[in-house]
Amino acid sequence: MSKPKVFEKPVGVKDYLPHAVSKLRSIERRVLDCMGRWGYQQILTPTIEYYDTVGVASATSDHKLFKLLNNRGTALVLRSDMTAPIARVVSSLLKDQSFPIRLSYHSNVFRAIEEEAGREAEFFQTGVELVGDASAEADAEVVALAIASLEAAGVTHFKFAMGHVGFLNGLYEEILPGRQEDQEALKACLLSRDYVGYREKIRAWSLAEEEQQKLESILRLRGGRDVCAQALQLSTNVEMQASIRHLEEIWEVLEAYQVSDQVLIDLTMIGDFSYYTGMTFEGYALDLGSPVCSGGRYDNLLQQFGRPAPATGFALKTTRILDVVADEEEEANPVTELQYTAETRAEVLQEARRLREAGQRVVTSVVKEDASCEKR
Amino acid sequence: MSKPKVFEKPVGVKDYLPHAVSKLRSIERRVLDCMGRWGYQQILTPTIEYYDTVGVASATSDHKLFKLLNNRGTALVLRSDMTAPIARVVSSLLKDQSFPIRLSYHSNVFRAIEEEAGREAEFFQTGVELVGDASAEADAEVVALAIASLEAAGVTHFKFAMGHVGFLNGLYEEILPGRQEDQEALKACLLSRDYVGYREKIRAWSLAEEEQQKLESILRLRGGRDVCAQALQLSTNVEMQASIRHLEEIWEVLEAYQVSDQVLIDLTMIGDFSYYTGMTFEGYALDLGSPVCSGGRYDNLLQQFGRPAPATGFALKTTRILDVVADEEEEANPVTELQYTAETRAEVLQEARRLREAGQRVVTSVVKEDASCEKR
Repeated sequence: MSKPKVFEKPVGVKDYLPHAVSKLRSIERRVLDCMGRWGYQQILTPTIEYYDTVGVASATSDHKLFKLLNNRGTALVLRSDMTAPIARVVSSLLKDQSFPIRLSYHSNVFRAIEEEAGREAEFFQTGVELVGDASAEADAEVVALAIASLEAAGVTHFKFAMGHVGFLNGLYEEILPGRQEDQEALKACLLSRDYVGYREKIRAWSLAEEEQQKLESILRLRGGRDVCAQALQLSTNVEMQASIRHLEEIWEVLEAYQVSDQVLIDLTMIGDFSYYTGMTFEGYALDLGSPVCSGGRYDNLLQQFGRPAPATGFALKTTRILDVVADEEEEANPVTELQYTAETRAEVLQEARRLREAGQRVVTSVVKEDASCEKR
Repeated sequence: MSKPKVFEKPVGVKDYLPHAVSKLRSIERRVLDCMGRWGYQQILTPTIEYYDTVGVASATSDHKLFKLLNNRGTALVLRSDMTAPIARVVSSLLKDQSFPIRLSYHSNVFRAIEEEAGREAEFFQTGVELVGDASAEADAEVVALAIASLEAAGVTHFKFAMGHVGFLNGLYEEILPGRQEDQEALKACLLSRDYVGYREKIRAWSLAEEEQQKLESILRLRGGRDVCAQALQLSTNVEMQASIRHLEEIWEVLEAYQVSDQVLIDLTMIGDFSYYTGMTFEGYALDLGSPVCSGGRYDNLLQQFGRPAPATGFALKTTRILDVVADEEEEANPVTELQYTAETRAEVLQEARRLREAGQRVVTSVVKEDASCEKR
């Protein structure tokens, strides 16, 4: 490959000019402040982690991890999310702190991308992890906080979808026992929202009519709380029944938060992270196809770091939110330009200091003596 | 090498727990706000840059650059400072914006470190670049802003040292003409503050007594403005004389800013960055050996990106400042814990919402019915 041109940057990464930075940082501050008011405390972890620890534990598929070698030949990764690093910290530096632990973060994360794909190799996430609480109350808390965070960010039109990985696992295991590959094929269709392909697959198999109908009826299991009642009719599978009961409990708490009208139950939802073990949810902003928030329960991750504990959390896709939030009001604090000559310098620079101390934005510059004469 | 333990992170990188993050972010906010009031606008650039562009242009020595390969085999670096990336942006995205351009940043930067050395592989810098102004006024502005930034950060006891790369270049070229290696050897002694070695070197050479004395007298050229007058006596070399005149002009402007009593002229100072072409300066906090701020003029960097322009700026070593700034006052906004039962849930969660909207920090939790009975 030829040398890059001097002004080029690697594919998939971005410069943010002052206008965008100001907006991004304002979103960041408002969201972190909101999380702070819910009792979540911010932490920072390194950009670089060991591949064999955080890299392997992360939910990002291996070929998308941004891997590198240090000068000793040890495999490293640029962090792909903050969930695994936080699990590492909770299990090490915070190992003596009792549960529940509430942590928040704002961070850039990385993906190894195919240069052709036009995807981002570095982007920002703002999120929380609630570690050490297995209850439906904890799940409802993070969903309600995700809603509050999107509102704090300035997103005005959004909806959340909530599901549970145990529902499909339980139902599929009952109808397609042991047929792991077929189960995965159906899930892949749901993940890519290929409902035509989903139906074709089911019809190609020789299932009893009732079972075929059950599998198809899943596609209609989206709506309010009544979806849960319909789902309970589909199977007596224990895992499935427990999942739905858990969703019902979460729903009740969301009603108490008075946010349930912003949430839709969607039992066809497949969380995009392999480590989810329970409730999962996604937030969608109006007119934007991909989610601006995703989260869920991951009760098996912490044990990989030696401190088994249930956990739940979410991440806002802060970079995407930047595109759906209205621009800030016209700069409330414009820049004042003060010019001075050698004679007026001391006086003008002290005036600049006073204005800055009063919170104003001031730029100073030298005016040539000639130029100042012309002005008279 | 054996696999890292699961809770380990790579050598030279750190986790920041909530207390430290809160302090770090408070410093970051106060310093960026200060820079904003001086008319500097924040930008963000990617963590990853091409080695052949920003990597090569950066002032960090090649073996300290954190290099990696992307999946096409192109050499990349994790940015080692923000000066070269900003030069790239000024020459590309901002190429139509007229000078002067004032930019600020807060960023993590990276070094490839020897694992044994105990140095940091990732740390934070907060700084500015003033591009397109060659004047002494511009140099004085960044020195005065560095002082204001340290004050904004909460550093109470500090001193700045200011020098000029042209002074030693000019004087050495007159006394040791063409002896590049000897000149470099003397500079190396000054950089490491090895004044004994410096004197030994000079005495080992067969110089005229007057020249030997001149070279030795440099070690005493530290102090207020009168240092400039002494320096001017040492040589008529044009480059040296121009350097000192430029420092005198800067000093005059610093007096107008009323900050000259925090600045010391130190003509033995060697900027740690190879790209400095003029005035250089460093800020020292009480009781800390290494500088908390370094900056200077670099008039040759921008042309490497295709838009030749003079420039001057500085970076605070934000991570070091964390250690010299007093801890924040005891948390002004403690966390209120509200407990609820299934019966009181809706009421308590709405109370939590009201308190949060009023700016309070509130954590909610479920109290078991039994436990609440016991309390009565």
